[in-house]
Amino acid sequence: MTDISREELDGIYAFAVQLGKDAGRMLQEAANLRMGAAHASREQKEHVQKENAVDLVTETDEDVEAFIKTAITQKFPSHKFVGEESYSKGASRDYLIDDSPTWCVDPLDGTVNYIHLFPMFCVSIAFLWKGRPLVGVINAPFLEQFFSACEGRGAWLNEERRLPLVREPVPPMPAKAPSGCIFSCEWGKDRRDSPDSNLHRKVESFVNMASEVGGRQGGGGMVHGIRSLGSATLDLAYVAMGSFDIWWEGGCWEWDVAAGIAILLEAGGLATTANPPYPNEETAPIEEVRLGSRAYLAIRPAGGSPTETGRQSQERTVREVWKRVRNLDYTRPGA
Amino acid sequence: MTDISREELDGIYAFAVQLGKDAGRMLQEAANLRMGAAHASREQKEHVQKENAVDLVTETDEDVEAFIKTAITQKFPSHKFVGEESYSKGASRDYLIDDSPTWCVDPLDGTVNYIHLFPMFCVSIAFLWKGRPLVGVINAPFLEQFFSACEGRGAWLNEERRLPLVREPVPPMPAKAPSGCIFSCEWGKDRRDSPDSNLHRKVESFVNMASEVGGRQGGGGMVHGIRSLGSATLDLAYVAMGSFDIWWEGGCWEWDVAAGIAILLEAGGLATTANPPYPNEETAPIEEVRLGSRAYLAIRPAGGSPTETGRQSQERTVREVWKRVRNLDYTRPGA
Repeated sequence: MTDISREELDGIYAFAVQLGKDAGRMLQEAANLRMGAAHASREQKEHVQKENAVDLVTETDEDVEAFIKTAITQKFPSHKFVGEESYSKGASRDYLIDDSPTWCVDPLDGTVNYIHLFPMFCVSIAFLWKGRPLVGVINAPFLEQFFSACEGRGAWLNEERRLPLVREPVPPMPAKAPSGCIFSCEWGKDRRDSPDSNLHRKVESFVNMASEVGGRQGGGGMVHGIRSLGSATLDLAYVAMGSFDIWWEGGCWEWDVAAGIAILLEAGGLATTANPPYPNEETAPIEEVRLGSRAYLAIRPAGGSPTETGRQSQERTVREVWKRVRNLDYTRPGA
Repeated sequence: MTDISREELDGIYAFAVQLGKDAGRMLQEAANLRMGAAHASREQKEHVQKENAVDLVTETDEDVEAFIKTAITQKFPSHKFVGEESYSKGASRDYLIDDSPTWCVDPLDGTVNYIHLFPMFCVSIAFLWKGRPLVGVINAPFLEQFFSACEGRGAWLNEERRLPLVREPVPPMPAKAPSGCIFSCEWGKDRRDSPDSNLHRKVESFVNMASEVGGRQGGGGMVHGIRSLGSATLDLAYVAMGSFDIWWEGGCWEWDVAAGIAILLEAGGLATTANPPYPNEETAPIEEVRLGSRAYLAIRPAGGSPTETGRQSQERTVREVWKRVRNLDYTRPGA
C-alpha cells in the first residue's frame, strides 16, 4: 500500500470507535465487580475476594488487550499491532512505530487510578500511518467521557461536542502565558531522591511554573492552576478539549500518548518535545512531536488575535515553558 | 430548638438533594452557553461574546448562590446561611459556624476549572447542627457525579452506589502507609517565592510524601500517586469514595469543605487538622476536625484487620503524614 484512501480511513475510524466502546465496557464491568455490584455472580465475587486488587487489574489489562488485538488482527491482518502488555513482555528496545499501518493500544491507562477506583482511567486506541497518528479513540467509562478523532473529520467528546469546547471563536493563548494557564503535569514513578533525579528536575520545573511573577529570579510562571490526574492519555484529551492549556511530561511510552496526540492534533493543538532544545530555546525550531521520544509538551488549540496567529501564540507558549523547565532524563530501555 | 428529630433531618436532606440537583443544572447550563451550545438564543450568545470568561463565571457564581439562598430562606426562615459569595463581600472575620442550624454553601467550587471548562467543578451544600455537618450534597454536573450523605443514612454516589465504593469488606489502610496510598493535594493560590512561604512548605511536604522509601533522610513516603484536581470539595468526595487515601490541604474556607466532610464522615472517613501538633505528632490526640481551621487532613474509610481496627489504621496513617509535612500558615483575615 502506498497511500490510504478517505474511504479506507473512515472505515478504520468507525471500527476503532466501536472497539473503544466495547473495550471501555469491559473495563467498567471489571471495576463494577470490584465494587461488589449487585449483578456479579457468586462465582465472580469469590474470584474477586480471592485475588488482590493489583492482580485483578493486571488480569483485566491483559484481557482487554487480548480482546482488542484479536479484533484488529481479524479485521486487518496486515496491520502491525503495538500494545502495552505485549511490549512489556517482549525484548524490543527499538522505536516501535515505523511507516507501516500500525495500531498502538493501551488497554488501561491510569492503572494506579483504576486500582484505587479513581475515575481517571481509560482505554486508548490509535491508528498510525507513516508514523503519524491519524485516528485516536479514548474511552473513560467511569467518567462517561469518550474522545475520538480522525484526520479530516474533527475531534469529538461523546461524538457530539466538537473539540476544543470553546470555538466561537477559539481563544488565543493568554498574552502572558504561562500566567493564566492551567498547567498539567505528573509526578511519575521515578522517585529517586538523588540531587539530579527526574523527581527533583520535575519539582524544580513545577515550582518555576507555579511561583509568583518576579519569583524564581524572574522565572516565576504564576500559572492559573497545576493539575495532576495520573493519566497521560486523559491529560492529552483535556488539552485537546481546551481545558488544560499546557501539558508537560517525561517517561511516557508510545501507547500512553498515540491516541491523545491524534485527538490533540485534529483539534488544532500542538505537540512537541518536553526538553528545551540546546543551545537556544528562544530560536530553535519547534519540531513536530516524535512518538517514542518519551518527553512531551502539548499546547491546547488556540485561535488568532489581531497581533498573532493561533500557531504563533502556541509557539510563544512553548518557548515560555522551555525557559522554565529542566531537561528530563528518560531513555528507552537499553538506549 | 434543643434537638433535631429524625423526620426533620430527613426532610432537610431531601430538600438539600433537590437543591443540589437544581443548582448543578444551573452551573451546567451556564457552561453550555460558554461552549456555544446549539440551544442558546442569539441574545444569550451575544451576551457570552460581550463578557470575558471570568466575568461570566462571577455572574454564574452569584446567580447560583442567590438561587440557593432564596430557596433556603423561604423553606427554613429561622436557619442561618453562610455562602461563599455573601461572605467574601462581607466584613466578618470570625469563625462562621456556631451552634445554630446553619447552611454552608459554595455555589461553585473549582472556579479555575470552571473558567477553563475542566470538568472538576461542583456546587456544594451542607447543613450543620451544633457545629457538626449532618447533611452534605455535592453535584459535579459535567462529570454527572452527584454525592450525598445524611447522618445515619449513608453516603452515596448518584444515589445508587454506597460509599466507600469497595465495602465487602472495606480495606484497611495499607500496612506501610503512606506507601501504597493515593495522596491528594493542591498547590493553591499562595505562590510567594520567599524561603518559608506556604508554597515552599507545601512543596517540601509533597516531595517528602513522593520520595522513595529511604530518601529524604529516611522520611520518603513513596506514595502510590499524587493527584491535584483543583477542587477541595471534590478531593473530599473522592476520599469518601475510597479512591483517594489521603487529602492534605491548607487555605480552604468553611464552604469549601463542609459538605465534603459531612459525606466523608458518614462514609466512615476521618478528618482532622493538616498541621502536625506540637510537641509530639506521635502521641498527641487526633482531634476532630474544626470547621474554619483552614488546614485539613482527611483519611479514607478503612476496615479492620486481624491486628488493628479501621480507626487505628486511619490514626496510624494520620501520624505518618504528620511526620512528613510542614505546618502551613493560613490564618483567618485579621486573625
